[in-house]
Amino acid sequence: MPSRSGSYRSAGVDIDAADSAKDRIAARVAATHGVSVLRGVGLFGGFFRAPQSDGSVVLVSSADSVGTKVLLASLLGEHRGIGVDLVNHCVNDILACGARPLFFLDYYATPRLVEQDLEQIIDGMTDACQAAGCALIGGETAQLPGIYQTDSYDLAGFIVGEVEENRIIDGSGIREGDVVIGLPSAGLHTNGFTLARAALGLDGSRDEAIERLAAAPDWSDRSLGELLMTPHRSYLSAVAPFLDQGVINGMAHITGGGIAGNLARVVPHGLGADINTAAWTPTPLFGEIQRRGEIAASEMFKVFNMGIGFVLVARPEDAPDIVRDIDGARAIGHVVRSTDDMRVNLRGITDK
Amino acid sequence: MPSRSGSYRSAGVDIDAADSAKDRIAARVAATHGVSVLRGVGLFGGFFRAPQSDGSVVLVSSADSVGTKVLLASLLGEHRGIGVDLVNHCVNDILACGARPLFFLDYYATPRLVEQDLEQIIDGMTDACQAAGCALIGGETAQLPGIYQTDSYDLAGFIVGEVEENRIIDGSGIREGDVVIGLPSAGLHTNGFTLARAALGLDGSRDEAIERLAAAPDWSDRSLGELLMTPHRSYLSAVAPFLDQGVINGMAHITGGGIAGNLARVVPHGLGADINTAAWTPTPLFGEIQRRGEIAASEMFKVFNMGIGFVLVARPEDAPDIVRDIDGARAIGHVVRSTDDMRVNLRGITDK
Repeated sequence: MPSRSGSYRSAGVDIDAADSAKDRIAARVAATHGVSVLRGVGLFGGFFRAPQSDGSVVLVSSADSVGTKVLLASLLGEHRGIGVDLVNHCVNDILACGARPLFFLDYYATPRLVEQDLEQIIDGMTDACQAAGCALIGGETAQLPGIYQTDSYDLAGFIVGEVEENRIIDGSGIREGDVVIGLPSAGLHTNGFTLARAALGLDGSRDEAIERLAAAPDWSDRSLGELLMTPHRSYLSAVAPFLDQGVINGMAHITGGGIAGNLARVVPHGLGADINTAAWTPTPLFGEIQRRGEIAASEMFKVFNMGIGFVLVARPEDAPDIVRDIDGARAIGHVVRSTDDMRVNLRGITDK
Repeated sequence: MPSRSGSYRSAGVDIDAADSAKDRIAARVAATHGVSVLRGVGLFGGFFRAPQSDGSVVLVSSADSVGTKVLLASLLGEHRGIGVDLVNHCVNDILACGARPLFFLDYYATPRLVEQDLEQIIDGMTDACQAAGCALIGGETAQLPGIYQTDSYDLAGFIVGEVEENRIIDGSGIREGDVVIGLPSAGLHTNGFTLARAALGLDGSRDEAIERLAAAPDWSDRSLGELLMTPHRSYLSAVAPFLDQGVINGMAHITGGGIAGNLARVVPHGLGADINTAAWTPTPLFGEIQRRGEIAASEMFKVFNMGIGFVLVARPEDAPDIVRDIDGARAIGHVVRSTDDMRVNLRGITDK
C-alpha cells in the first residue's frame, strides 16, 4: 500500500485510528459467533448460514453510510442522490462477496426532521432498491437534537443478500497471472468527501461553498456541485452475468482505502497485484481536487477511487469477454507472486 | 392515545412530524416489495421469507438507535451500557414479532474516533449479543467531522432474527377479554432522553450537568447518572418459554409513544385495551422527571415507558402462569370491544 501522508488526517479523518479500532472489533466479536457464522469480519460483508435452508444458502450482510457527502447535499438542498448512494454502496459491498441483494433497511438521523429532505432520500433509496431487486423493508427515523450539527444529518444502510455457499467469492480462487479488470466509477461515489471539501474550499462559510458548488470547472459544462454529487454506481447488473458463469475469482468494491487498500483484502497471501495506473485516465474531477488541495498522488489513490469503482479478477482466458461486455471495463493489471507485505503495487504514481 | 401536549416538541423532538414522514415512507417502500416480503412496515420489524427454506421460515429485521442517551454517556464517560442498550432494544423489537435473534450489525459514527469509547461500546454489544445468542457479524465505524457535534456520537443497530411463519405474533390472535400483562422496565431504557435531559437541567452547561448527574436524588442511594444510564432490559429469556408454549397473542415493545402508542400497533380493529395505571407504581425516577419538568401525566405516558418495558397479551386462563413465572410481571389491563379510534385507554391518569 502507498505510504500514508498526513493530509487526509489533517482534513479530519484518521484512517489509522479507524483501522486499529476495527482490528479490536474483530477480536471481541469472534466470541459471539456460533456455527452459523462462516467467517469473521474483514471482508466486504458478514456471512451467516440461512436458517433451515439445506445449508447451502448463505446470508451476506453489510452496514454502511454515505459519509460527509451529506453536507454537500444539505448545501445544495438535493438529497435524492444520497439515497441512491447509500443503497448502491451496500449493494456493491455484498456483490463483492458474490451475493445478490434481498432486503434493505435504513437509519436516518437528524437534529430536526425536514420531511421534504427525507422524502427525497426515500425516493432515491426506493429507486435504487427497485433497480437492484431489493426490498426496502424497514428503517428508523430519529430526531436527535444535540448530537447532530444544524443542517446536517446522517444516513446509514443495512443490506442482506444471499449467495450459494459454493459461489461465495472471497479471493481464494485468485491465481498468479490472473487479470485485474477495473470498472469505471461515476465520480467520487461516497468516499473522500472530507478531503475533497477541504481541497475545494467547501468546508468554510456556507455562502462561499454554495457559490463554488454552482460554478463549473473550466473543463466541464456541469457545475462542481453536480460533478461531486453524481450518485454511487451499482455494479450489480454489469457483474451478475459473470457471477452466473463462474468466471470471477475475486472482487473488490473501491471505497475508503482506494484500489490498493480494498483489493489487498481479497488477494491471497503469497500473491500480489501489479496495477498499472497508466491503463486508465481518472476523470478530471480527481485532478481538480489534487491540484487545488496540493495532495500527493499516493494520497489521492488511497482516499479516492480515482475513476475505478469496482475491480474484478479473472483468468486471462476469461478477461477479454468481461472487458468487452462491460461498458468502460479495462484490464488495469495482473496478479503476481509476492513475498512482501505490499500486496498491491500501484505502478506509475509519482509524488513530486 | 393521550392527547399530545407541546412539551415533548418544545424539548426538541417532534413526534407528529416523525409519524407523518413514516406514513409516507410506507407508501413509497411498498413499490420495492416482491413476493418474499410478508408485510409492509409498521410493526416492530420487517418480514422477509428466508431464501430456499421450505417457505416456513421468515427473517425478521429491525433498525434502531439509542437516541440522545449517548449525550449522557459522553458526559459520564461511560459507554458500555449504550452497547447493551442498542442490542437489547433491537432484540426486543423483533421479539415483539415472535422472532429470536440470529445476527446483528452496528453503525458507529463520531466526529473523531476515541478508541476507548468504541471499545466500551463493543464490550456492551458483544455481552448483550452473547446473552441473546446473537452473532455480531459486522459493522461500520465512520468518522464524520462536520456532521456530529463535539463529544457526541451516534450508534445504530440492525438485527435479523427468525420465526416460523405460523408462529409470527402480530396481534391478530388478540380477543376480547384477553389479559394485558406488563413486564417491568429497568428505567428509561432508550426513550425520552431529550425530554428527561431538559426536565432535569442536563442540557445546559457541561460542568453543571456532570455535577447534577453525580448527585443522588433523596429517594435513592444511586446517583442520577446511574439511574438514568441503567441499560435497556432484554425480555428474550423471560418471554421465550411462552412463545414455545404458543400462549401469547400479542406483544408490544414499549418505546417512543409509550404504552398506548406501542400497544395500539398490535391491537386488532374493533378491539381496544383498557389499562389501569394504578396496577403498578412507576419507579421514582419517572416522578422526579415529571415533577422537575412540570410535565403533564398524559405526556409522561406518551414519552416514557413509565416502568413497563414490554407488554404481553394472553388468554385469561394462560395469564396467571405468565404473571407467576416472569419476575415482576403483573396484569395491567384487559382487551375490550372498541368502536372508536382510542384503542388503548390509560385509566387513572389525571392531568392537573
